[in-house]
Amino acid sequence: MPDADTQRKLIEILRILSEATEEMGARKIAEEMNRRGYNLGERAVRYHLRMLDERGFTKKHGYLGRVLTATGEDELKQALVTDRIGFISTRIKEIELMTTYDPATNTGEVAVNICYIPKDRFEDALGAIKRVVNAGYAISPRIKIVDEGEEILENDVPLGSVAFASVCSITLDGVLLKNGIPVNLKYGGILWIQNGEVQRFTDVIDYSGTSINPMSVFTSRKMTSVNKAIETGTGGVLANVREIPVAAREKAQELIYQMKAAEFLGVVSGCEPVRPLLGVPIELGKCGIVEYSGINPFAAFVELGIKTRIMPLATVINIRELKKME
Amino acid sequence: MPDADTQRKLIEILRILSEATEEMGARKIAEEMNRRGYNLGERAVRYHLRMLDERGFTKKHGYLGRVLTATGEDELKQALVTDRIGFISTRIKEIELMTTYDPATNTGEVAVNICYIPKDRFEDALGAIKRVVNAGYAISPRIKIVDEGEEILENDVPLGSVAFASVCSITLDGVLLKNGIPVNLKYGGILWIQNGEVQRFTDVIDYSGTSINPMSVFTSRKMTSVNKAIETGTGGVLANVREIPVAAREKAQELIYQMKAAEFLGVVSGCEPVRPLLGVPIELGKCGIVEYSGINPFAAFVELGIKTRIMPLATVINIRELKKME
Repeated sequence: MPDADTQRKLIEILRILSEATEEMGARKIAEEMNRRGYNLGERAVRYHLRMLDERGFTKKHGYLGRVLTATGEDELKQALVTDRIGFISTRIKEIELMTTYDPATNTGEVAVNICYIPKDRFEDALGAIKRVVNAGYAISPRIKIVDEGEEILENDVPLGSVAFASVCSITLDGVLLKNGIPVNLKYGGILWIQNGEVQRFTDVIDYSGTSINPMSVFTSRKMTSVNKAIETGTGGVLANVREIPVAAREKAQELIYQMKAAEFLGVVSGCEPVRPLLGVPIELGKCGIVEYSGINPFAAFVELGIKTRIMPLATVINIRELKKME
Repeated sequence: MPDADTQRKLIEILRILSEATEEMGARKIAEEMNRRGYNLGERAVRYHLRMLDERGFTKKHGYLGRVLTATGEDELKQALVTDRIGFISTRIKEIELMTTYDPATNTGEVAVNICYIPKDRFEDALGAIKRVVNAGYAISPRIKIVDEGEEILENDVPLGSVAFASVCSITLDGVLLKNGIPVNLKYGGILWIQNGEVQRFTDVIDYSGTSINPMSVFTSRKMTSVNKAIETGTGGVLANVREIPVAAREKAQELIYQMKAAEFLGVVSGCEPVRPLLGVPIELGKCGIVEYSGINPFAAFVELGIKTRIMPLATVINIRELKKME
């Protein structure tokens, strides 16, 4: 009997196969697993597929593909009955716990978002990401660029593609948590900038009740105008609101200050006792921290018509692996 | 001093003007107001613009347009500080209260969603809507078709367009409420159909914490496969989950039965004491009602590549004005 985590992955693979409209090999399954928030590489998928084959739930089909057997379909139906939606907030807590970043020493693992783009748009993308960093709409000036054939997320970046990893704002939540401050990432939204000044949120989605990442919703609906905000001073950028207890305010502000010293410059509003905060309701006894989203550089790609595959909250990476953009 | 409701509309018009990237006349403002959940026609917008002009907040610009004055900009900034996000759940409660539908007599006003399409795609759209109705993925077989030049939402349908009004699932919530059953529309999501059988939700968004309608999110992200569900028996359709107290179960089932008799056939799961329900968590002491979304016909349009402007929860219409599709 595999452990609960392996069990969940096995079921998710069965589900992917059952929903597939085309032949699914290990690579496609790995990509789909990543899209669904499982950090599982091609090799690991092959290992799981062997387990499923042994149990008679899947069988080989053609050279690369796998299909569900009748037994596999029954197993899946059984599993589905007790299964729940994968709320994104569960994923957030997982990544928060995986971070080890310490602002005092500027060392450890930070949460990152990853974005794949076609290699022939690399220069455009690099220009965009630099502008977003310089305008202050990213979390940190540190970026990791992973070329085709190099490994990220236990997979090689496909030929013809390049991947960018940007610091994810959840890094802050990890730091707060490790310092004993309970933190709740509450809303993701569009923060309206007018003449270079932060105005208010114009749209938000609560992280606790969604299975789709709000950042993905806003980006794919083309609701951002990051490039316009940079060029004209007026536009909508991605930002998040987290809540901490009012009692933890001073300690949190100290940590935010430490992070600023380490060039984590994304915090827009750190624990001011304002309610509502930039148009967003804050719970009684809590104060809100507004931080830009690490997805802003990738939203800028989308606005420029660059074909992207964005994976928010993709994994954690040691801060040393990220290089500062100049 | 105008009343709070008028005040809100005036501020929203100022906001639209301040965010505008092109000249905005009454017609465009009315459309944008509707998109933002205000049921305000072109004539009403002109009336509000006169109020804003008198106060010196706006002035005429060119033949049709209005622009903000410096005074208007200041007023808007002031207003924004105390303003809150327009959560979609507030809109839901408004529409719920506006419905007067009585299933016992099959009379009264039902909630409707509206979708504008180009007139040259009318036959395709009509075919699609009939298929969705016949497959049972709509709320009701009753539809209102509004031709170009005819009035809906206090506006004429633009030349070259046709509008469809479909019954919105919120009609059920209105009926429950009028019968003393507190109801909470909890999740909007993608319900997966496999070989013609309802499987489970694959994605959901909580209505209480979003400013964007979940149905719009799923539709615009092209996450639905309504036509495929109809053609092959397997696909993802839009559905909603509402919660009522367990104590109200029998009364609710009676009302659902009455509504079925009146051809409101959208209920998938009516208060079965199952938790989780189709993969979705249900609060303790509550039971869940799963109903298909009235947006499914319009999602089918989007899947067919028909250009749509969809307004969920648009207004209420007397059931007599809706005609049964054959």
